Amino acid sequence: MGKLRRQSKKAGLAPGTLVFTGAEKTDKVTIHVLDYDEKDFKEIQVENIEDIMPLKETDTVTWVDILGLQDISVIEKLGQIFSIHPLVLEDVVHPIQRPKMEEFGTYIFFVLRMFYFDNENIVEEQISIILGENYVITFQERPGDVFNPVRERIRSGTFRIRKSKSDHLLYALIDAIVDNYFIILEKIGDTTEDIEDDLLANPSQDTLLEIQGLKRKIITLRRAIWPLREVMHGLDRTESDLMKPATKIYVRDVYDHTNQVIDTIENYREILSSMLDIYLSSLSNSMNQVMKTLTIIATIFMPLTFVAGIYGMNFEYMPELKWKFGYLFLWVIIFIISLIMYAYFKRKKWL
Amino acid sequence: MGKLRRQSKKAGLAPGTLVFTGAEKTDKVTIHVLDYDEKDFKEIQVENIEDIMPLKETDTVTWVDILGLQDISVIEKLGQIFSIHPLVLEDVVHPIQRPKMEEFGTYIFFVLRMFYFDNENIVEEQISIILGENYVITFQERPGDVFNPVRERIRSGTFRIRKSKSDHLLYALIDAIVDNYFIILEKIGDTTEDIEDDLLANPSQDTLLEIQGLKRKIITLRRAIWPLREVMHGLDRTESDLMKPATKIYVRDVYDHTNQVIDTIENYREILSSMLDIYLSSLSNSMNQVMKTLTIIATIFMPLTFVAGIYGMNFEYMPELKWKFGYLFLWVIIFIISLIMYAYFKRKKWL
Amino acid sequence: MGKLRRQSKKAGLAPGTLVFTGAEKTDKVTIHVLDYDEKDFKEIQVENIEDIMPLKETDTVTWVDILGLQDISVIEKLGQIFSIHPLVLEDVVHPIQRPKMEEFGTYIFFVLRMFYFDNENIVEEQISIILGENYVITFQERPGDVFNPVRERIRSGTFRIRKSKSDHLLYALIDAIVDNYFIILEKIGDTTEDIEDDLLANPSQDTLLEIQGLKRKIITLRRAIWPLREVMHGLDRTESDLMKPATKIYVRDVYDHTNQVIDTIENYREILSSMLDIYLSSLSNSMNQVMKTLTIIATIFMPLTFVAGIYGMNFEYMPELKWKFGYLFLWVIIFIISLIMYAYFKRKKWL
Amino acid sequence: MGKLRRQSKKAGLAPGTLVFTGAEKTDKVTIHVLDYDEKDFKEIQVENIEDIMPLKETDTVTWVDILGLQDISVIEKLGQIFSIHPLVLEDVVHPIQRPKMEEFGTYIFFVLRMFYFDNENIVEEQISIILGENYVITFQERPGDVFNPVRERIRSGTFRIRKSKSDHLLYALIDAIVDNYFIILEKIGDTTEDIEDDLLANPSQDTLLEIQGLKRKIITLRRAIWPLREVMHGLDRTESDLMKPATKIYVRDVYDHTNQVIDTIENYREILSSMLDIYLSSLSNSMNQVMKTLTIIATIFMPLTFVAGIYGMNFEYMPELKWKFGYLFLWVIIFIISLIMYAYFKRKKWL
Amino acid sequence: MGKLRRQSKKAGLAPGTLVFTGAEKTDKVTIHVLDYDEKDFKEIQVENIEDIMPLKETDTVTWVDILGLQDISVIEKLGQIFSIHPLVLEDVVHPIQRPKMEEFGTYIFFVLRMFYFDNENIVEEQISIILGENYVITFQERPGDVFNPVRERIRSGTFRIRKSKSDHLLYALIDAIVDNYFIILEKIGDTTEDIEDDLLANPSQDTLLEIQGLKRKIITLRRAIWPLREVMHGLDRTESDLMKPATKIYVRDVYDHTNQVIDTIENYREILSSMLDIYLSSLSNSMNQVMKTLTIIATIFMPLTFVAGIYGMNFEYMPELKWKFGYLFLWVIIFIISLIMYAYFKRKKWL
Repeated sequence: MGKLRRQSKKAGLAPGTLVFTGAEKTDKVTIHVLDYDEKDFKEIQVENIEDIMPLKETDTVTWVDILGLQDISVIEKLGQIFSIHPLVLEDVVHPIQRPKMEEFGTYIFFVLRMFYFDNENIVEEQISIILGENYVITFQERPGDVFNPVRERIRSGTFRIRKSKSDHLLYALIDAIVDNYFIILEKIGDTTEDIEDDLLANPSQDTLLEIQGLKRKIITLRRAIWPLREVMHGLDRTESDLMKPATKIYVRDVYDHTNQVIDTIENYREILSSMLDIYLSSLSNSMNQVMKTLTIIATIFMPLTFVAGIYGMNFEYMPELKWKFGYLFLWVIIFIISLIMYAYFKRKKWL
Repeated sequence: MGKLRRQSKKAGLAPGTLVFTGAEKTDKVTIHVLDYDEKDFKEIQVENIEDIMPLKETDTVTWVDILGLQDISVIEKLGQIFSIHPLVLEDVVHPIQRPKMEEFGTYIFFVLRMFYFDNENIVEEQISIILGENYVITFQERPGDVFNPVRERIRSGTFRIRKSKSDHLLYALIDAIVDNYFIILEKIGDTTEDIEDDLLANPSQDTLLEIQGLKRKIITLRRAIWPLREVMHGLDRTESDLMKPATKIYVRDVYDHTNQVIDTIENYREILSSMLDIYLSSLSNSMNQVMKTLTIIATIFMPLTFVAGIYGMNFEYMPELKWKFGYLFLWVIIFIISLIMYAYFKRKKWL
Repeated sequence: MGKLRRQSKKAGLAPGTLVFTGAEKTDKVTIHVLDYDEKDFKEIQVENIEDIMPLKETDTVTWVDILGLQDISVIEKLGQIFSIHPLVLEDVVHPIQRPKMEEFGTYIFFVLRMFYFDNENIVEEQISIILGENYVITFQERPGDVFNPVRERIRSGTFRIRKSKSDHLLYALIDAIVDNYFIILEKIGDTTEDIEDDLLANPSQDTLLEIQGLKRKIITLRRAIWPLREVMHGLDRTESDLMKPATKIYVRDVYDHTNQVIDTIENYREILSSMLDIYLSSLSNSMNQVMKTLTIIATIFMPLTFVAGIYGMNFEYMPELKWKFGYLFLWVIIFIISLIMYAYFKRKKWL
Repeated sequence: MGKLRRQSKKAGLAPGTLVFTGAEKTDKVTIHVLDYDEKDFKEIQVENIEDIMPLKETDTVTWVDILGLQDISVIEKLGQIFSIHPLVLEDVVHPIQRPKMEEFGTYIFFVLRMFYFDNENIVEEQISIILGENYVITFQERPGDVFNPVRERIRSGTFRIRKSKSDHLLYALIDAIVDNYFIILEKIGDTTEDIEDDLLANPSQDTLLEIQGLKRKIITLRRAIWPLREVMHGLDRTESDLMKPATKIYVRDVYDHTNQVIDTIENYREILSSMLDIYLSSLSNSMNQVMKTLTIIATIFMPLTFVAGIYGMNFEYMPELKWKFGYLFLWVIIFIISLIMYAYFKRKKWL
Repeated sequence: MGKLRRQSKKAGLAPGTLVFTGAEKTDKVTIHVLDYDEKDFKEIQVENIEDIMPLKETDTVTWVDILGLQDISVIEKLGQIFSIHPLVLEDVVHPIQRPKMEEFGTYIFFVLRMFYFDNENIVEEQISIILGENYVITFQERPGDVFNPVRERIRSGTFRIRKSKSDHLLYALIDAIVDNYFIILEKIGDTTEDIEDDLLANPSQDTLLEIQGLKRKIITLRRAIWPLREVMHGLDRTESDLMKPATKIYVRDVYDHTNQVIDTIENYREILSSMLDIYLSSLSNSMNQVMKTLTIIATIFMPLTFVAGIYGMNFEYMPELKWKFGYLFLWVIIFIISLIMYAYFKRKKWL
C-alpha cells in the first residue's frame, strides 16, 4: 500500500520530473566506486559526483554504487555525465517499479527487487542498475545490500570477474540478488513447518492469521520475482553489444535459478492452501467432538431424569412407590438404560 | 448494468447512427480549445464548432476538448471537419466501449476509461481521444476530469510538452488517466485495511457485504484496465507516422505503470479472497465457542439435576433420605461430580 | 442435453446425409427473398425454390431467408443451385453446431447462435449464413428472429446497406444478433439484482437454485458466444474477395461488441460466485444465531432447574427448608444467577 | 490405475520389445479384411497373415482389421509386410497410449480412444490405425467396436466411401469414433438429470458418491478426447500426400465435432461442480432445520420445567402452594410463557 | 526445503565454484565405465579418473558413471579431460536443479530427476548426464539407480543399443527414468485406493492428513516432471549433430510417455481434490447425524419431563393427583406424546 501512496504523490507531474518518493530519507547520498581491470583495482568513496568523469573514460570496469536517492541534484548530474534518459532517472528515484529491462543503445537499464534480512525482518528494496560499455551504476535507497560477496571477489583479484567486462559484473550482481531469494525462501519454509506443527497440535484463529500472513509475504515475493523471468529471458536474447556471448551462459544459469525460485513459491502457495483446508476441517472435527459429547450426556441423562421425575410425582395411587424393592428396582432400570446407551454409542463409534 | 441498458437502447439501429446513450444530460456542449507551439499559446472557449477550422490548418498543436455528448449535431459537424469515420463517432456518443485503439490512416482513435473521485464517490467515465497530425480531440460526457495538471503544464510553457507534437499531448493525457488509477487504488487499499481491522475485531454479515462490495469495485476497475495493456502495447508497436520514436519511450513508461496497476489489482483480489476465508473460519470458530459453552453447561448440570431428581422421588423405602448426613453427603457428591467435569474440560482445553 | 440427443440420432450415417435433427417441426418451409441494389428493391415470398435462379444471376444483392429446415429436398435443391458442399448442408439441417466460419472459395459459411425472447423465455436458435458474391442465404429453424430492423433498413432505402454489397448485409445480420445478446444480458442483469435483494432479505434453498439456474443460462450463453470471437477475428483477417476492406471496419466494431458481451458474461459469473459465498455464509450465520439462542436458554435455565431440584429433595434433614425466608432466599439466588448469566452473555456480545 | 500397471510391467525392457500388456486375453487373433474400389468389393476372414500380401499390391483400398493383440508373432509379421517401425508396433500392443498422430513417410500412425456401451457399461478401448497409400490397418484389443455403420456403407456400395481412397476410410473410422462420444455423453447427461432430481428430493452421501463417480467418468473422457483435438488439427495441416485435399473438409468437420464434445464435457464439469455446491448447502440447510427444532423445544420446555420444579420444592413456607387457584394460576403462567415463545419464533421466522 | 538450504549454503560464492551441497556423503567416489561397440564390450571400475583418457579417444561408446559427488577434485579433473564448462560442473555437484537441457557445441548437458523405491520409501535423486560424440557421462549422488536394465542390455550384446551410438544410450537412460515414474505412480494409485476405502468406511483427521501427504508427493513429482516435457521437446527439435535422426523417433516415444505421466498426475490431483470434498461433506453429514440424535432425544424427553414435573408439584389443590386412574392416565399421555413425536420424526425422515 505504501507503494501506491508514493505513486499517487507523483500524479500530475510532468514526465521526467525527479521527485524522490522513497520511504526513508537517509542522511546523505554516498557514492562508492570500484574501478578495476585484470591487473589494477581501486576503491574510492566519491564526494563530488563530477569526480567520476575521469574513470568513465578509461578502459577499466567502473562500478558506481549510489546509496540514497533523496538528493535529486546528484542523480541529475549523474544523468548528464552518462547521458541517461530523464524517464530512467525518474524510475530510479521513484522506487516502486516492477522488475524490467530497457535497452537504450549505449546502455541497458534494469530494475530489480532485492530482498534481505535486517534483524529478522524481510526488507524489500528496489535496485536500479545501468549497464554501460565500461561501467555499471547501481542505485539503492538505503545502505545494506546483498552485494558484499561480489565486492570481495573483485577485491581479492583471483576470480574471473576481474578478467571480464562490465556485463559479467552485471551478472554477478543479479546472481547475488537471486541467491538471496533462496535465503528468504528457506526462512519462509521454516515458518511453514512451524505453522504446520501448530496446525496439528493446536489449531486456532491465530494459526489462520499466520497462514494468511505467510500467504501475503509469498504474494509479495511472487509479484517481485515473476517479471524477473522475463527480464532474464530478454537479457539472454538481447542483440546489444554490451552483452558478450560468453556471459550469456551465466545469464541462462541465473534464469534457471529464477525458475527454481518461482517453482518453490508456487509450491509454498499450494502447501499453504492445503493448510487452510486442514484448518477448516479441524474446526469441523472439533465441533463434531463437542456435539458428540453434548449428545452423549443429554441422551444418557434426559431419560434418567425423566424416570426420576416420574417417581417424584405426587399421585395418590402409585403402586411402585409402595413396593419394598421399588427403589432398588429403579436403580436397576437406570443401570440398564445406561448400559443400552453405552452399547449404542459404542456401536456408532462415538466413544 | 446501466451499460447494457444503453447498448440495448441502440439495438436495431443502422451502424453509424448517432444516438447519445450516456447517463446524464448536461445543459450544453462546451468546446474548450488549447492551441500552442513552443512560442505561442492560445486558450479559447469555442461557441461554434466551425470556428475550429482555421486552427486545424496551422502547424500548432490544437487540443479540442468536447464536454458533453448529447448534442449530436456538434459531433456530426466535427466529424465532417476532421473527416472522421461514422463508426468512430458512434463509439464516441455511445460511452460504454472497452478501451481500444483503432488506426485510420490520418488519425488514431482511442477509447479509455477514466476514474476519479467526485465527493468520495468513484466516477467512471469514458474518454474518447482522436490523435491527428496537428490536433488531439478529446470527448467527455461530463465536466470534471483528471487533465488539469496537463493543462497547467501547457499554460506554464516551460515543459517539454510545449516543444513536442500532438503525440506527446496524447501521451500526457493517457499518463494522467493512469496516474489517477493509482489514487483510486490507494483509496481501495485504505478501505481494505479498515475491513481487515473489522474482520478481526468484530466480524459480521456487514463485513462480508463490504468485502463483496470492494470485490465488485475491483472487478470493474480490472475490466476497464486490462484492455489498456493491449492498447499501450499496440501504441508502442504502431508503425503510424503520428507516433514519433521519441514519444515511444514515454509510451513504454505508461505501459509499465499499467502493468503495475494490474499487479496491484490482482494483489487486492487475492487479499479479498483471503479475507473471505478468514470470515468463514471466524463463523465456524464462533460457533465452536457457542457449542462448547452449551456442552459445558449441559454436561455439568444434567448429571446434577438427575441426582437431585433421584432424591426428590417418593419411594417409601429410600434409606439415604433417613441418614443424618444424607443432605451433606449429597453436596459432597455434587462437588465431586463438578470437579471431575472441570478436570475433563480442562484436559480437553475447552476451558 | 437435447443437443446430444440430436447428434446421437445421427451417429453412423454417412457424412453429408441430410437428416433434420432440430426440435420442432414447423408446418412448411417458407422462403422469403429480399432483392435490392441502390435503386431497386423487391420482396417476394418464393413458393418454388427454383424461382430463385433468375435472381441469382443479376448484380443485385439477394437475401434468401429459409424458415424451417425439415424439408430436406428444399435444402438439397438449394445446395445444387448454389453448388454448396454437402457437409455445409449437413451442418445447416443439424442445428447444434458451435459458431464457426468456413471458407469455400466462392462462398463463406457461417454458423451463429441467436438468442431472443419469446414470451419471457430465452430462445436459442442456430442461424446458418452463406455469403456469396451477390447473395446471402440464411437458414432458421423457426419463424421469429432478430432481423426485422435490418429488413426495415433495406426497405426504407435511405441507409448505407442499399448502397453496399452482400458483405455489408452479412455484417448487418451478425450485428443484429450481437445486439440482441445485450438485451438478453440486460434481462439477466435484472434477475441478478432481484436475486441479490432476496439473498439479503430472505435467503433460502430456492435462492440457491435460482442462482444455479442463472449460472447455467450464463454458461449456455458463454458457450455460444466465445467461439464467435474467433469467427469475427477470422472474418477480419480473411483474404477472401467476398469481404471488402470498407466492411472490415464494421466487422471490427462487431468484434469489439462481442468482446464487451464476453466481458459482461465473465462479470456475471464472478457476481454469481460471490452470491454463492454470501448464501453459504448466511447459512452459517443463521445457524450461529440459532445456537446462541439455545445456549442462552440452556445456560440460564439448567442451573436454575438444578437449584429447584435440590429443594425438591425429600431428605429428612435439610435445614434450608425450615428457614422462614428460605423460599424468598431462593428467589434471590435465582435472581443473582440470572443476572450473572446476563452479564456474561452481554460481555460475549451474544445479546 | 490398470493402465499404470501395464506400463510398469514393461519398465526395463528394450524399446521395440513387443509385450502385450492389455487386460483381457481373447482366444485368438482374428483378421478381418475388406478390400474394395468403386466397382468391386471383397470381404474375407484371413487365417494366415501372409495372405494379405497380394491385396497390398493392388490399387484397391484394403482395410485390415486386427482383433486381439496378444499374439505378438502376428503383429510382428504384419510389421514386416508393411515395413512398420518397431516403436509403432510397441504402441499398438501396449494399449494405454494417449491419442496421437505420427507421420512416417509412407504411412501415418494414429492412436485413438474408442468408447462404447457393452451392457450398460462404458467400455474404453484403444484403436490404433495405420493409414498407408492403399490400405488402412486397425488394431483392436477386443471384438466389439463402433465401426459397423462404416462396414455397412462399404458393403452397400452406393456411398462416396467406395469412390474414395484410403484417407476417406480413415476419416469415416474417426468420425464413427467421435459420433459415439455423443452417445456416451447423452447417457451421462441422463444420469446427471437423475442425480439432479435426487439432489433436490433427497440428498444423501450416496448422491455425493454418484456425483463424484460421474466426475471421474468425465475426467476419463476428457483425458481421452482433449489430445484428439490436436490430432485432428495436425491431420488438417499435414503435408503428407496420403491426405487428399478433398478429404480435409471432412477432417475439419470431425474437428468441429471434437470441439463440440469438449465443450459439452466442460459444460458437465461445471454442472457437476454446481451440484456439489447445492449438496453442501443442502447439508447446512438440513442442519439448520434440525437445530431450530431443538432450540424451539428446549426454549419452550426449559422455562416450563423450571417453573414446575419451583413448585415441587419442599419449603415449609411457600404461600403459592396454599392458594386455592394456585394450580390454575400456574397453568395460566405456562400458557402465557408458551405464547410469548411462539410469538418470538414466529417473528424470527423459525416456525 | 532441504533443497533451499543447499542453495542458500552456496549464496555469495563465485559462479563455477564447486561446493558439494548434496545431502549424504558417501564414502568414496566410484567410477564405473562401460565401453562398447557392436563387437566388443568392456566393463571396468576406474580407480583414477585419468585412466578414462584412452577410452575417450576410441570410436567405441563410453559410458562413464560417477557415483558420489563429494570429491570435488575428481569432478574438476573430469571437467578438464572432457573440457566441460565450470557452470555445468557447478550444476552437477549442486543437485537441486530443475530438469533442463543445455547445448554446448561438442556436448549436451542434461539434468533429470530420478525417482525410485528404496525400502518402500520414494527416493528422489538428481541425475546429470553429459552426451558427447563417443561418450555419455552420468553423475549420481548415491549408489542405487534405475539403470540396471540398460546395463544388462549392453552386456548381453544382442540389442540395438550395441549397434548404436551414444545418443541411443542417452535415450535408453532417459527412457529408464521415465519408465520408473510409472512404477511410482502405480504405487501412488494403490495408496489412493486405500485412502478412498478408508474415506468411506471411517473418515478421520488422519485420512485428511494422508490425503494431504499424497498431494504433496504428487506436487513434488509434478515439479520434477513438468520441465521434462520441455527437455524432450527440445531434444526432438535440436539441430545438434549429436542426435541422429533415427534416435529422434525414440525421443518422441519418451516424449509421449512423459505426457502420459503428466496426464496421470493431473488425474490424481483431481481425484485427491474430490476426496477432500467427500471428506468435508462426511464431516457435515456426521454432524447432522449427531444433531438429529440429540434433537430426537431432547424433543421426546423434554415434554415428558415437564409433565412429570407438573405432577411433582406440591400444590394443595391439584385434582388430578386424587384421581384413581391419574397415574395410569399419565402413562397414557406419555405414550401419546411419544407416538406423536415418533410420527413427526418419521415424516421428517430423521428416523
